[in-house]
Amino acid sequence: MAAMKEIPYKIYLEEHEMPKAWYNVRADMKNKPAPLLNPATHQPMTAEELGVVFCKELVDQELDNTNPYIAIPQEILDFYKMYRPSPLVRAYCLEEKLQTPAKIYYKFEGNNTSGSHKLNSAIAQAYYAKKQGLKGVTTETGAGQWGTALSMACAYLGLDCQVYMVKVSYEQKPFRREVMRTYGASVTPSPSETTNVGRKILIEHPGTSGSLGCAISEAVEAATSQEGYRYVLGSVLNQVLLHQSVIGLETKAAMDKYGIKADIIIGCAGGGSNVGGLISPFVGEMLRGEADYRIIAVEPASCPSLTRGKFSYDYCDTGMVCPLAKMYTLGSGFIPSANHAGGLRYHGMSPTVSQLYHDGLIEATSVEQTEVFRVAQEFARVEGILPAPESSHAIKVAVDEALKCKETGEEKTIVFGLTGTGYFDMYAYQKFNDGTMTDYIPTDEDLAKGFASLPQVED
Amino acid sequence: MAAMKEIPYKIYLEEHEMPKAWYNVRADMKNKPAPLLNPATHQPMTAEELGVVFCKELVDQELDNTNPYIAIPQEILDFYKMYRPSPLVRAYCLEEKLQTPAKIYYKFEGNNTSGSHKLNSAIAQAYYAKKQGLKGVTTETGAGQWGTALSMACAYLGLDCQVYMVKVSYEQKPFRREVMRTYGASVTPSPSETTNVGRKILIEHPGTSGSLGCAISEAVEAATSQEGYRYVLGSVLNQVLLHQSVIGLETKAAMDKYGIKADIIIGCAGGGSNVGGLISPFVGEMLRGEADYRIIAVEPASCPSLTRGKFSYDYCDTGMVCPLAKMYTLGSGFIPSANHAGGLRYHGMSPTVSQLYHDGLIEATSVEQTEVFRVAQEFARVEGILPAPESSHAIKVAVDEALKCKETGEEKTIVFGLTGTGYFDMYAYQKFNDGTMTDYIPTDEDLAKGFASLPQVED
Repeated sequence: MAAMKEIPYKIYLEEHEMPKAWYNVRADMKNKPAPLLNPATHQPMTAEELGVVFCKELVDQELDNTNPYIAIPQEILDFYKMYRPSPLVRAYCLEEKLQTPAKIYYKFEGNNTSGSHKLNSAIAQAYYAKKQGLKGVTTETGAGQWGTALSMACAYLGLDCQVYMVKVSYEQKPFRREVMRTYGASVTPSPSETTNVGRKILIEHPGTSGSLGCAISEAVEAATSQEGYRYVLGSVLNQVLLHQSVIGLETKAAMDKYGIKADIIIGCAGGGSNVGGLISPFVGEMLRGEADYRIIAVEPASCPSLTRGKFSYDYCDTGMVCPLAKMYTLGSGFIPSANHAGGLRYHGMSPTVSQLYHDGLIEATSVEQTEVFRVAQEFARVEGILPAPESSHAIKVAVDEALKCKETGEEKTIVFGLTGTGYFDMYAYQKFNDGTMTDYIPTDEDLAKGFASLPQVED
Repeated sequence: MAAMKEIPYKIYLEEHEMPKAWYNVRADMKNKPAPLLNPATHQPMTAEELGVVFCKELVDQELDNTNPYIAIPQEILDFYKMYRPSPLVRAYCLEEKLQTPAKIYYKFEGNNTSGSHKLNSAIAQAYYAKKQGLKGVTTETGAGQWGTALSMACAYLGLDCQVYMVKVSYEQKPFRREVMRTYGASVTPSPSETTNVGRKILIEHPGTSGSLGCAISEAVEAATSQEGYRYVLGSVLNQVLLHQSVIGLETKAAMDKYGIKADIIIGCAGGGSNVGGLISPFVGEMLRGEADYRIIAVEPASCPSLTRGKFSYDYCDTGMVCPLAKMYTLGSGFIPSANHAGGLRYHGMSPTVSQLYHDGLIEATSVEQTEVFRVAQEFARVEGILPAPESSHAIKVAVDEALKCKETGEEKTIVFGLTGTGYFDMYAYQKFNDGTMTDYIPTDEDLAKGFASLPQVED
């Protein structure tokens, strides 16, 4: 049984210590992330063009590379108070289990019913849609965390919420679907008969179980073909990282309050929404020459966009209707294997995170899922929280680093993002518990197929 | 969008404000709950007899009707710090939705991975088992909240945990099962071939899907037939209410801190673990003549032990191997319908809660599940928390009382216990979302069959 030490076991900021503005790391970046391009003309997307698909104020945030702080509207601050601050927890029990001199902290974003950090951006995007006088929003969801968060936010604001859920997930994760329905969202299995692109795909590929790319294309079509609707996205975009900076800002405020200095900061990376938000204020310090950290983005070995991808313009969706983004990508034609961390199965990566990685400000590493679940189970047993598979990628690397400290005797301070809970991932845990989980690493040939789908764009 | 008022939206006690002792309401009761009786002799169970089945210190707590405060051991306080204090939340959004002048607060016990208040007693019982030098504990679980909490507590302390899970739940709730396995528990569908009573039942009733009563009997046999094991139970017993008093103590401390005075206190009631713990310190004030409250225990109309049961000695299990308890009961032979609030499907009620009800200190009411789910959905949409079906019984009555205030214009302060989250109850929500949920109220004839199973005991 672990004894408690001086600093509170869980650090909760007081209401007056919570961030009042999001931090826009692009303002401090010398090399800005490359602009989104029009998929037809390959010219930078204008605010007007983006405004057809996205809400107006979100377009402004997407394009703003200069303002370091953007005030959080009072209504969003009020909503944040419903579930924030999230705790920064000292992993005493994990440290004791590992017998490491390292000090391990995790920022736990799972303490809201949506179960993950996705709510931080969902409420912001829903708020701006409401403010613009829209009737509703459309989106896609795969693993379901984003769809759940958006459903919650829309229920709160009285907005219609239309979710296109990848058909295989719709069928295999009926409980995720029911959470969204309980929050009042309509959930349509994708591909569906409700859109042109869906009907086309159903004719070309009868019996297909869908893909995230197809669901994005359907959601975009649904948004642009209905009066008073816009499309929203839970990751990749600059605006999402901006909203998610609340994670990093709270983490930094809590650490500063108690004089804790991080040596290593670790986040799991799918589209980059979590890791981008967690690290933003710390990277900002590095960019301004005020501090130095080791920052590690962790991705699944089965979908290694940072560690094995190309830094190139690519489509954000397989339907190729969305703008092109310059990012580390495996190609929109890359088909990720059935890794159980659905939130990390994305061919690309946030352009901001990609640029930071390209400029050497952050590291990246990849890990295999069986080992991830082994560590997740160990973590659950000693820390009590059942982590989401996505989050567990960060735990795995935090544990590895803590074990290195055990060898060297160094008392490093390790901080990682625990993005959410695994309540809806018990099928994956079951596979692990039964010993039937397998690992998959794409071959160079697999990757070559994905790279062949990259568009030809002159930088 | 609701504006925030003066008192914090969520009241979290500081670490130094958290209770250091449990409150034993029996010490202040003039009419003590009747003693447990030996099922063979009908004589009060001695500590020695109880010690065969239960841990020694827990037996002492079970029999202690005199000490008002029992110190919480430091190791349990340390564990409580991992997930306590739980927040006392002002339901501003619900109030606004209802347009009521009532002030509604809820004590939210779902912010730990076990997902419910059950952890408060699970860690205590596991701690005393560990302290006694035992190898492990056995228990039964139906809905799965208790089994999950006990698995977590045992994982933390390195104790073996053997759970007998009602077979129908084992098969219909595979994810609950997997959570327990992830925490390292062994989970056996009951009835099983691992016990005499299980084998006997399988021969007599081939193909049976089991019952809570059968699972209890198997768990008790497993505990008494293995060296170094004891049986633990998640509700009904006095010791459980003692541990759960931490809910009420925190609630009262938070209210006192901000000068909030409750008018009505509401809890859902199955075996009584939650409502008994929540109300204890408030009932204590009433018993000592220091304050007056309206206290309401809410049960499902399908299993109405308080509102339609008899105050009588009865078996705690259908296998009739456990001690007899004097309580409000429908008879151990009563077969509850398939209500989706599995945690409230118990034929009896805590002897302490029963005595308080019998003495007129608390009220009881029953509600039907379709209406409960309607209110649960409404609550989820505005407050963001997806409530467990059990907890939603309390929400329903809190809403009813708030609507009465709307009619009368009274600004009553209503406090209810939100015992847990509904992540593992999405099948029930799906039935509600699909409009296929039904209600069931037992007829007087149904009840008569249950009462026929009551043992003949002279008081």
